[in-house]
Parts: sequence; structure tokens; C-alpha cells
Amino acid sequence: MTSLIRFSIITTGLILLSACQPEAPVANTDQASAPRANSNTGSDNASVAIVIHGGAGTITREAMTPDREAAIRGALEQALKAGHDRLSAGDTSIEAVIAAINVMEDAPEFNAGRGAVLNHEGFVELDASLMDGATGQAGAIAGASTQDGGIRYPIRAAHAVMTDSPHVMLSGAGAEAFATTQGLEFIESDWFITDFRYQQWEDARSARAGNTDTARWYSTVGAVALDQNGNLAAGTSTGGMTNKRFGRIGDSPIIGAGTYADNASCAVSATGHGEFFIRHVVAYDICARMRHKGVSLDQAADEVIHGVLVDAGGDGGVIAMDRQGHIAMPFNTEGMYRASIDTNGQMTIAIYGDEVANPSE
Amino acid sequence: MTSLIRFSIITTGLILLSACQPEAPVANTDQASAPRANSNTGSDNASVAIVIHGGAGTITREAMTPDREAAIRGALEQALKAGHDRLSAGDTSIEAVIAAINVMEDAPEFNAGRGAVLNHEGFVELDASLMDGATGQAGAIAGASTQDGGIRYPIRAAHAVMTDSPHVMLSGAGAEAFATTQGLEFIESDWFITDFRYQQWEDARSARAGNTDTARWYSTVGAVALDQNGNLAAGTSTGGMTNKRFGRIGDSPIIGAGTYADNASCAVSATGHGEFFIRHVVAYDICARMRHKGVSLDQAADEVIHGVLVDAGGDGGVIAMDRQGHIAMPFNTEGMYRASIDTNGQMTIAIYGDEVANPSE
Repeated sequence: MTSLIRFSIITTGLILLSACQPEAPVANTDQASAPRANSNTGSDNASVAIVIHGGAGTITREAMTPDREAAIRGALEQALKAGHDRLSAGDTSIEAVIAAINVMEDAPEFNAGRGAVLNHEGFVELDASLMDGATGQAGAIAGASTQDGGIRYPIRAAHAVMTDSPHVMLSGAGAEAFATTQGLEFIESDWFITDFRYQQWEDARSARAGNTDTARWYSTVGAVALDQNGNLAAGTSTGGMTNKRFGRIGDSPIIGAGTYADNASCAVSATGHGEFFIRHVVAYDICARMRHKGVSLDQAADEVIHGVLVDAGGDGGVIAMDRQGHIAMPFNTEGMYRASIDTNGQMTIAIYGDEVANPSE
Repeated sequence: MTSLIRFSIITTGLILLSACQPEAPVANTDQASAPRANSNTGSDNASVAIVIHGGAGTITREAMTPDREAAIRGALEQALKAGHDRLSAGDTSIEAVIAAINVMEDAPEFNAGRGAVLNHEGFVELDASLMDGATGQAGAIAGASTQDGGIRYPIRAAHAVMTDSPHVMLSGAGAEAFATTQGLEFIESDWFITDFRYQQWEDARSARAGNTDTARWYSTVGAVALDQNGNLAAGTSTGGMTNKRFGRIGDSPIIGAGTYADNASCAVSATGHGEFFIRHVVAYDICARMRHKGVSLDQAADEVIHGVLVDAGGDGGVIAMDRQGHIAMPFNTEGMYRASIDTNGQMTIAIYGDEVANPSE
């Protein structure tokens, strides 16, 4: 951080030399965020932007087939455009985030909805969370089973929790029961399970103790969007960790850890080794650094992903956007499935670490 | 980062030389927290301190009987001393937090363990979380049922998740199964249920829609401690919200929302309307304001409880302590069950809003 020097020379002869950079922005952002009611006033333009991820991990060219890479890039583009179309039509960032994530929940390539990883018992469990940066409202489901059929679009269940319950987080059979009362679509158990995930599960079960290869692949999906009213939103959806046991809850359904959105700072969706993301409150900490330290989105995201998490040994990455449409997609793994359309309409789709990460810079 | 100096030269000749407060501590704490390995080196004295809470809410003298008040004060004192005895004996802050919370989990006066509220189905569900400020390790259980017997000391289950699993948060039947593998004590269902809570549950079930009286009482328990090695820890245990449905998870088992501990900033346990505490990441945000803005514990806790939460309409409070043993216990409700022994050995036990809140000031 550069040190800023501020001189205030006042007529009486008072000289104030102050180098306290955090003070001014802190005061401003705190004021802006407290009521969180300025959802429709803060933006002078109708620029929209969206950024999505399909997970981070040991993603290398050597481990990829051309067919699989094409399928992943195609699914990312489809999801991105589904979200962007909603934004262009004047829909909210919440609607755009849901539209983008729904495509990835349907796509077998990602660890969310269809194609999600299997838990220790051999079925898919679903986590999702969603947050509205304009209102601070949020919803999440954790550990919704698909053993006797499951919620087709977990992110829509998170949305229903946000809009139609007094709660933020519903879990297990309760989340399924709530989704039923909301008339959400359920689909049969087998729809969720792909051959690829079944094989991965078998490998994990037969793996020697200490073999953590499967744990280094975090293909959670997420989306962050900025709509024509200048409102941010973020959402995340996942099947969690392969072969997980004991009702393990990762960061994805936890507001603050896997997902956060606040018009006064930024919106974030995370993907990575969930336990580290919970302990370091990753999504919120990026927003907190913007609010409390007054640093840029890029710096805040960088400090957390390449500083805090690397020091702690936590693998993963985030997508993040501020209210001006700046996009950050840092990750400390070999690769991250990611794609964005910025406020200029420029689209980027990337997988590996050496591809362009941020079209807005 | 070098410490920045602010000069204010005033016409009278007074020279005020002050270190720019926000910057230096931010740099220091970021460095200190990254490896989080300096757990046994940062404190030159063997001062210990502990603060506990038994919930916040519409606690008024009018609604209290002398017998109930005496029972509550007695239980708070017993819990406080159980924790403080561990600290005096040289045990860790984690052990002190567990000891204090165990007393409150056994006491029928509080919404944790025995005496916890009943869910919609008429049985107790248990949430707890624990975090070690020296290592950043954390553990939590959410929605552990007591329908066929339950975990007697939920905070010990959270501890076992922290020490004996690769995960941070286990839920539902999985949390119970894990506790069984750890040899934790289980006790029969009826042990948890008190006449008072049964009546409260009946009242809630028969309440007219919109009657939220029972929801304004948050008698979660928690403890925060500083041990002889200068290490902080925080823990929280609860039955959640009376008549809760759909596997609702509140803030108590969520690291960042209901519980946080970090030697580089502070340790916090929260009690209140959980949905607000989740959305505003209350426990971590207090630590984040200390780390990122460099403000004091008192100011950070005050900004969140009396600023952010009041603006949002979120009732509740926190107990918090920094590594120097400063104690904060702000709440925005009529009262909060709270008690502390500071680094000078001074004990305070308080219930109502007009009682002394902070012996260290």
C-alpha cells in the first residue's frame, strides 16, 4: 500500500499532516452500507456485467481432453450468456445469477445439480446460497438430499429461502420439505449422477489414506452480476466434497464464507477447500477489506486469495465484482473455470492459469 | 510497513504527535495472523480473563421473579468460575471456554443443552461452534437431534469436529454419528426438555400469526477466554429458535456469524436474531474492523451492535475480548445475561441494560 500524505493548511496557521488513508473511505462506505437502501440510485449508467466460475483445482492441459475442454467452454459460454441476456433485458442481478447458475446446475460438467459429486453413501447432496447486494437479504440450503429425488435447481431453493421464509439457511430434510412447499421442481435421483462422478467416488473410496487427489478439485459453480440499476448479487451452488461424510457442510452455503454481496463493497462467489474458506470468512473478508481499509476490489481479492489463503494452505479462488463493474477472478490453484462479460460487453472464457484472467484490466 | 506519523501543529505551539492508528495495527495484525503460529509468544504476562453470556432479549425486571433471577445469576457465576479456574490452572482458553459452556449446557436456565428450546416437532436440536484464536482451527455442529437421545455437551462435539475431523461443520444425523464415533456422552431425550420450554413451545405454536414475542428472546450461551499464553478462544452453544422448522440453521454454529476467534484481533460469541447475525457476519466483522481499520475492540463491537445491526433491525449482542484482555459486552436489547472476570480478577455479573456492562473500563 502506498502511503498517502495529506496536507491541510488552515488560515489560522494550523497545519495538519495526515497519512491516515483508511479513514476517509471507511467513513464513506460505512455510511453507504448501513441503510443498504440506495439500491437504485448509485449508478449513472446502465452498464451490466457478469462473471461466473465452474470450480478451481488441479486443472492442467495434460489432464484435459479436447472433447472435455470444448464441453466445459461451451457450458461456461451458455451459462454466461443466459445470465447476461437477463441483465440486458433489464432483469435484476439476482435473476441473472440464478439464470447463469441454472445452466451450470443442468450441465454434467460441473459439481452442482446434475454432475455433482457423490457423498460417502453414494448419492448427491446439494448446497446453494444467494445474496442480494441491494437489500442484504440472503438465502441458503445445505445438505439437501437427492436420495429419493432431489431439488433440480438448488439455487432456486436458496432464492425461495430468501424471499419466502424468515430464515437464511435451511438444512437437510427440512430444506427439501421447504422446497416442496414452494413448488420447486424435483427430479429423480439418477438424473444427478454421471459416470464420471461415480468413478471419482469409487476412486475416493478405494484411495489409500492420505491420498487427497480428489480433494484438490473444487468444481463448485457460482455467478456474480451487476444489473442496470447498479445492484450486485452473488450465488453459489455445489455438491460439496467427493465422498463427504457426517453431513459435512462446506463454505458454499455459508453466507460470508462462500457467497457475499453488498452494494457498498462487492459481490463474491468462492470455490475451493471449503474448510479454509469458512475459517477465513473468505467472501465477506474481501468485501470487508474494501469497506474497512478502502482498498480496491483487485487488491482485496488478491490479499485474501494469494495472501491469507496461501499462508494458511487453503486452495481455491473467487470471482468478484464491485459496483463499478470491475471484475476480479484470482485463484491460487493451477486453474479455474471462469468466464465474464464486462461492462463494455467484452467476453472472456478461461480455464488454465496462464490464460487472461481479467478482461477489465 | 513503516508506522506513519501524523503531525498537527497548532498556532498556540502545541505539537501533537500521534501514530496513525489504523495503519500500523493493520500491518502488524495481518502479518501476525497469516501463519497464526505465534500462539505462545505474544504475551508477556500471565493475565487471564473470561467473559460469558447466557443470551440477550426482552429481559426486564418486571418479567423476572426473584427465584429465577437468583438461579440465573448463580448459574452464570458457576459457569464463569468453572472457566476461570481452568485458566488459573494454566489450561488453554479452549478448555476454559468448554468448561464454562458445559455448566450452562447443564443448567436449565439457558437455551443450550438441557433447557434448550423445542423445534416445530417438539424436540430439542443442538447447534454449537468453537474457534481457537491461536491456530485459526474451528469446529461446529448444526441441527444435531435429541429425538432418540442427544449429545449432552454440544460444545464438546464442536471441539471434536475441530480436533478429530478434517471438517469445520457437521450437520444433522451426520453430526450425531460423528459424536458417537468420538465416544461423546449421549443422554436421553427428556433430559433436555424443561417445563418452561415446553410451555414456551406450546405458546409459540398457538400464537397468532405475527406474534413474534418468543422470537425476541435469544438465550444462546457463549464464552470467550484469554489464557496464560495469551491465546484467545470463543465458543457458542444453543438450541436455536423456538418452534423452528425446516432444519433452520442460525448464526450460532456458523464460524464468522456466531463465533470467531483470532489472536491478531479478537474473540467473539454472539446471541441474537440469527438471520441478521449471518447476513452481517457479526462475529467476524468485529474482528475485521479491528484488523482492517485498526479500531479498538470497544469501537468495533459498538459499530456492529449499535450501528450495523440497529440500522438493519437486528436484535442481539455479543461478548468479545482482545488479546490484552479488554472486554466488550454490547447489546441492543433490553438486557443480556452476562458475566466476566477481567485480567485484574474483578468479577461482574449482570442481566439488565442499566447494570455495569464492562468492568475493565
